[in-house]
Amino acid sequence: MNQVKGDLKSINLVERLKEILPEDRITTNETVLLNHSQDESFHPSSLPDVVVFPQVKEEVVGILRFANDHKIPVVPFGAGSGLEGQTIPICGGITIDFQEMNKIMDINPRDLLVVVQPGITRLQLNAELGKHGLFFPVDPGADATIGGMASTNASGTTTVRYGAMKDNVRDLEVVLADGSVIHTGSKAKKSSSGYRLTELFVGSEGTLGAFTELTLQVYGIPEVTVAGRAVFSSLHNAVQAATSLLQIGVPIARMELVEAITIKGMNKSSGTNYTEDTTLFLEFHGSKGNVDGDLDITKELFTGFGCYQFDIETDSIGRKKLWEVRHNHLYILKHANPGKKVLNTDVCVPLSALVEAIEFSRKCIDENGLDGSIIGHIGDGNFHASIVLDQNNLEKVDSVNEQIVKFALSVGGTCTGEHGVGLGKMKYQHEQHGKALDVMKSIKKVLDPSNILNPGKIFRLD
Amino acid sequence: MNQVKGDLKSINLVERLKEILPEDRITTNETVLLNHSQDESFHPSSLPDVVVFPQVKEEVVGILRFANDHKIPVVPFGAGSGLEGQTIPICGGITIDFQEMNKIMDINPRDLLVVVQPGITRLQLNAELGKHGLFFPVDPGADATIGGMASTNASGTTTVRYGAMKDNVRDLEVVLADGSVIHTGSKAKKSSSGYRLTELFVGSEGTLGAFTELTLQVYGIPEVTVAGRAVFSSLHNAVQAATSLLQIGVPIARMELVEAITIKGMNKSSGTNYTEDTTLFLEFHGSKGNVDGDLDITKELFTGFGCYQFDIETDSIGRKKLWEVRHNHLYILKHANPGKKVLNTDVCVPLSALVEAIEFSRKCIDENGLDGSIIGHIGDGNFHASIVLDQNNLEKVDSVNEQIVKFALSVGGTCTGEHGVGLGKMKYQHEQHGKALDVMKSIKKVLDPSNILNPGKIFRLD
Repeated sequence: MNQVKGDLKSINLVERLKEILPEDRITTNETVLLNHSQDESFHPSSLPDVVVFPQVKEEVVGILRFANDHKIPVVPFGAGSGLEGQTIPICGGITIDFQEMNKIMDINPRDLLVVVQPGITRLQLNAELGKHGLFFPVDPGADATIGGMASTNASGTTTVRYGAMKDNVRDLEVVLADGSVIHTGSKAKKSSSGYRLTELFVGSEGTLGAFTELTLQVYGIPEVTVAGRAVFSSLHNAVQAATSLLQIGVPIARMELVEAITIKGMNKSSGTNYTEDTTLFLEFHGSKGNVDGDLDITKELFTGFGCYQFDIETDSIGRKKLWEVRHNHLYILKHANPGKKVLNTDVCVPLSALVEAIEFSRKCIDENGLDGSIIGHIGDGNFHASIVLDQNNLEKVDSVNEQIVKFALSVGGTCTGEHGVGLGKMKYQHEQHGKALDVMKSIKKVLDPSNILNPGKIFRLD
Repeated sequence: MNQVKGDLKSINLVERLKEILPEDRITTNETVLLNHSQDESFHPSSLPDVVVFPQVKEEVVGILRFANDHKIPVVPFGAGSGLEGQTIPICGGITIDFQEMNKIMDINPRDLLVVVQPGITRLQLNAELGKHGLFFPVDPGADATIGGMASTNASGTTTVRYGAMKDNVRDLEVVLADGSVIHTGSKAKKSSSGYRLTELFVGSEGTLGAFTELTLQVYGIPEVTVAGRAVFSSLHNAVQAATSLLQIGVPIARMELVEAITIKGMNKSSGTNYTEDTTLFLEFHGSKGNVDGDLDITKELFTGFGCYQFDIETDSIGRKKLWEVRHNHLYILKHANPGKKVLNTDVCVPLSALVEAIEFSRKCIDENGLDGSIIGHIGDGNFHASIVLDQNNLEKVDSVNEQIVKFALSVGGTCTGEHGVGLGKMKYQHEQHGKALDVMKSIKKVLDPSNILNPGKIFRLD
């Protein structure tokens, strides 16, 4: 479904790109094109015309300048682990794969800052940071690239304590559509100078520029980490307990809600013997004294909300197992349904509406006879209903997704808490943002007048 | 120095505004104009042509629509406590004073959210929140309005723990230049939907729109609050100790650096008997167990960095006194210099450059024979040199300010950590932001094509 755009069909892309970067980093190899035609979502694939692998900023500048001159679509590409089709080149053109720009440029423990290129993955980064007693907390599950995580404002299990990408990116080096290079921030921890461009570019999904360097805030590895599971007799009690914990200010590092039905699936596939009831998976970070104190408070408070079982894992093997079981729920679902895809809803709602939103989602799934599990980043009000998808139930699943989104919007929530808009959430942008969508479009138009940057994502410009 | 702009001189503003709001909330009374001609900075005053006091959003819409049609400058005005001339109407026109839009629209303890109108001050808000066991943490010192604080991305003593305004505003209702109304966010704690307009508008200093409603994140009042003072034998040791404390993740709620010379002034004017050496003023928030734990860790760590005195205040009277002494430093300086003004520098630098930046600033002040004190939000790398100003030393003070800013920029910092750009930091915008300044200007131009919104602030558009 490549649209003919600009000079795309009239010029020899490879020949022209050879003027910008070496031939061995420009490819039209079919397998490579195929690998860049799809992400981990259910959205239909679409081939780029060419894939390039820049190694330095200057090459990215050259590519964008060329593409802009000839109105050729450009899609920045990280690990391809997106869940809403952000990197699918629906208009063809040039896909810039950043895998060869994956260096750590600087680790600065005194400033708790690190400067990286966009193609480094979070696990690669954390392996290196660990040697300095540091870590980067944002954990979307997948081993995404830092550039990709910034482009979708990714977050995850640790966001309740450490925030999302927007909270942890201090500065971006961005190549704009016309090839000019800007820095959006500084190395200072806070600033009131000029408009806040860092947050504008974080989450812009490649539609405003290509990131070539990111300055991130990092953290000292906590002295003590304790994981745990708290079992409740009802969803309602679990959510109330979690909300109260946040309200009294316990700095919980992870707090994940898992439905009883999903625990059942976990036990079956992971060989665990967890009590099959609504469970909060927890993690505490801090000094020994503080973690002990937090555990005491949490246990006492949770008991008041009907928590009848509270198990903790203090050693790293136990913790690892616990989080593996939690993280594997998607693979469990996929394994149980070979050859099928999974749609992940991603709404985020105010905490007061969370119980109702989850119950509503469960009802929609069941009433439509679908197979799905629900997992929630409960401290943020963000949850995913992962629903098994095939050719026969596509419309039904889409309708359930839509019902869940509409519910979230009706209570003041958002259609996407962390996966981004991409292709999947475009149709809800007007309902969610109203006239603010026009403001977004006007910013897009002024920064990318030829609409070469990831065209057709987030919103249509016509 | 009012510039003639648009139809400003050819139409009767009061008559036309009477079509939008009642006559008794439109004034050209000289005293009122005078009160809106200046803020708390040293910048020259300039009169508005008229001041209006809207009570509802629809009136703000009407005012902006009218102003936009006739290209008349509009300046949103909160408490007038700005420090960089943001609310000085240098082009005349209409000043919108939001003091009659100061209601709390909703307090929602379950979601830890509150919805307010822009004219409420932070003390008014906290008085009301306290009844619900909640508080809004951002504390810039002055009793600024929430709208004003959002417009400069204000922060202060508690930012090291709770963040700046950008971190605590969940949604803004904004009236744009053409009178259209948008919401920039949602009630969800996180979102990856569309461009992040909330952070774009926070800190835009009235140049992109007028805020008519703000949804803020609030916090449960901590069970225990303990304040303290830690005395060090050198600036270097104090900063190292503070940096280390952050690195190991102690969630300190306030950490303020005060120079020995400033402690001396405090003792003299406040009747205290504090040890006259480099001091960190501290505050800990949390459960009893956690605060005790944090205190133990802090004391032990600080001792390792040469802290030789550590006093704590557990009761509210002692805490109040301690912070009064800290907050009064500016008034002390003003009292000691009747009739004179004070310039506050506001740079923010990476923590690793903080000692050098403070020592450099002290040297500049002393070498120029100026009178000034230095106070630092040390956890953020942000500090203020408050320098006494009169007609005779204006150039010298300006030159010292400039030297301090240039130093901050040379180490990757920012010219303003929390006061904003206004008039005072305009001349550093190009040096700090480079080509990113063009991006800011292009956003301004597309959202306010007639440049009616607080014209002549942050940057010039010619």
